[in-house]
Amino acid sequence: MEQLPHCETLLLEKHGPALFLTINRPDVRNAMSLQMVAELSTIFNQIEQDNTIRAVVIRGKDGHFCAGGDIKDMAGARGQKADEGQHDPFYKLNRAFGHMIQQVNESSKVVIAVTEGAVMGGGFGLACVSDVAIAGPTARFGMPETSLGVIPAQIAPFVVERIGLTQARRLALLGLRIDAREACALGIVHQAADSETQLEELLQATLERVRLCAPNATAETKALLHRVGHEPMNKLLDSAAETFAEAIRGPEGAEGTMAFMQKREPKWADDSN
Amino acid sequence: MEQLPHCETLLLEKHGPALFLTINRPDVRNAMSLQMVAELSTIFNQIEQDNTIRAVVIRGKDGHFCAGGDIKDMAGARGQKADEGQHDPFYKLNRAFGHMIQQVNESSKVVIAVTEGAVMGGGFGLACVSDVAIAGPTARFGMPETSLGVIPAQIAPFVVERIGLTQARRLALLGLRIDAREACALGIVHQAADSETQLEELLQATLERVRLCAPNATAETKALLHRVGHEPMNKLLDSAAETFAEAIRGPEGAEGTMAFMQKREPKWADDSN
Amino acid sequence: MEQLPHCETLLLEKHGPALFLTINRPDVRNAMSLQMVAELSTIFNQIEQDNTIRAVVIRGKDGHFCAGGDIKDMAGARGQKADEGQHDPFYKLNRAFGHMIQQVNESSKVVIAVTEGAVMGGGFGLACVSDVAIAGPTARFGMPETSLGVIPAQIAPFVVERIGLTQARRLALLGLRIDAREACALGIVHQAADSETQLEELLQATLERVRLCAPNATAETKALLHRVGHEPMNKLLDSAAETFAEAIRGPEGAEGTMAFMQKREPKWADDSN
Repeated sequence: MEQLPHCETLLLEKHGPALFLTINRPDVRNAMSLQMVAELSTIFNQIEQDNTIRAVVIRGKDGHFCAGGDIKDMAGARGQKADEGQHDPFYKLNRAFGHMIQQVNESSKVVIAVTEGAVMGGGFGLACVSDVAIAGPTARFGMPETSLGVIPAQIAPFVVERIGLTQARRLALLGLRIDAREACALGIVHQAADSETQLEELLQATLERVRLCAPNATAETKALLHRVGHEPMNKLLDSAAETFAEAIRGPEGAEGTMAFMQKREPKWADDSN
Repeated sequence: MEQLPHCETLLLEKHGPALFLTINRPDVRNAMSLQMVAELSTIFNQIEQDNTIRAVVIRGKDGHFCAGGDIKDMAGARGQKADEGQHDPFYKLNRAFGHMIQQVNESSKVVIAVTEGAVMGGGFGLACVSDVAIAGPTARFGMPETSLGVIPAQIAPFVVERIGLTQARRLALLGLRIDAREACALGIVHQAADSETQLEELLQATLERVRLCAPNATAETKALLHRVGHEPMNKLLDSAAETFAEAIRGPEGAEGTMAFMQKREPKWADDSN
Repeated sequence: MEQLPHCETLLLEKHGPALFLTINRPDVRNAMSLQMVAELSTIFNQIEQDNTIRAVVIRGKDGHFCAGGDIKDMAGARGQKADEGQHDPFYKLNRAFGHMIQQVNESSKVVIAVTEGAVMGGGFGLACVSDVAIAGPTARFGMPETSLGVIPAQIAPFVVERIGLTQARRLALLGLRIDAREACALGIVHQAADSETQLEELLQATLERVRLCAPNATAETKALLHRVGHEPMNKLLDSAAETFAEAIRGPEGAEGTMAFMQKREPKWADDSN
């Protein structure tokens, strides 16, 4: 792995093929600052080219995932005026968050969100772009924006993509808070743990599956999934068949076929690299 | 509030920021007539400009939400021929209903459906465009059209938007009837009450949330949600960031921020207006 | 009914208005061969014009639905090189499967999948394009492709259409296997039976509903459902209103209205034809 940059707002640790990314502003319940957005964006950019990383586990330090936008940044933007021909500082603040969310959504890595405590506003949006989301027993989810006189501008669209318009409209319009069970029933998270212990077990089981799946095939599959609904099905399937032919003739396809016939684990399952 | 027009088929009452709209044809289980379609359309048009109304509660008088299309209107259309160059009277009847449904779907108000008894055909369609749908213990939902030799033309598309193609195809193709529990599991309604008492409690809790959320921010959020999937995500997020900046600098954003810092309810929560 | 062609890989039987299509390669857990793909495609083509068939029940012989792609076909494709200007044999193999899946998805008949045992890879894809899917207690579902170094190219897009991106990304990226209960909770199947007996009862109840629904109205409704989200809602509803007017003035609409008023079953419910 290349050296990861030092971050003010994030703790980074690598274990096997997984990068553990811990949001580290516990004094403000891990509220998302402009700096945190920039650092998340930098990290996700950098690991995109790092073949030793196959999964990213995002969680928050000391019991909260992320409580939403940072109040100091908001106050700062309020004090500024837009320069002529420039966007409003509030626009920039808000859109920067959205760009980061899009980047995480489309990361070629398997993104795993471990959600505990406050998963609000921007934290809720971040959880909604993960490939696998697991909730701990303390997790509380919501978009409180409309109750504060603003809108969940960069969050609500990803909530619609996550759980559909029907449930998103109730949650967003009423500014509701829901617990882990309801979040799991709605599909915001995939699994809700009854205890801290079970939360860690579910995470380990997920990472074990990441270990067994071929990295490039996984990345190609994720890219394919994101295209569904955005282009005609026929064209998508034609293109996917090409990718299939390349994959099965490529090194992973050869190794996977061989390992299957020899009843052994494929080489990519060796996580000592 | 401006004076609401007199309606033959609807009862209208205002309580706080909510308009209670009761379908009032109990002798025919609140079947939807052409006149009812016209009156619903008129009301939703008129309240669009009425800032004192933030939510519309739709329910049916005497135990049924709405049993579907009116048989007399059907017979009337059958007796007519289309004039040259004109649409078939059945086309007009059917499409008028669909236009009204689209209008309710996109209303800037929070639309709450309280579903009891028969929620069939057009009534089912109407429930499927609400922001919050709550079912009473007697509610029964279905699209019986294919069993009558016709198609749920203006209803099925909204059912697909509501619960997805997978569940919609089973319900529509088999002309099934389902109860409140199954409707809740499928996402047709958000909540299913075990009793009349609980039904009223769930409605009150929903209206309490409406009271606490800023009216304009809520309307902007609803408009945003409806755009997801219909335009490129990047363009949508750019536009949403502009709306965010306007909202936070506007009167609701200022009041919401102030109320939050002063740990008091925002002014819009005063429902005596 | 016209004579159905003899098939090597499928058993065909007609009972009333339903064609029972049984995948018949039990020695390889009904793995999907190129020949099977061709035969399924031929059958679905042929029945499209057969008005005596209203439903197709797909199941696998001897306890498995379909365990995925056939290993011999894979080995055969690996041995071949693409001729100049031709697609890779792996492309053809893969895309042929996808074309068949699209055809089943859009069949005008009610497609019922009875899923038991292995419902993997291509079998999983086939289950995901049914109108009604019922799972037996032994059913196991999954896309193991990424664990074999390849991608679920013609399958994953239909899984996204079936259950949405959120659940599809977890299942596909982790190559998970799930049981009937979880498949039902996710919406892969509509119903999960606790026993073989209940499985047959659920199938019979589904066929009973098919019997009661008008064949042409059902086919028109299915075509309408598939258009939602692929064209502007206004245009779709205009077109659907035209189909409604034709349907209600057509023979099924007349018979359905008459039967309803006379409190008798409509003629199409007589399944002795």
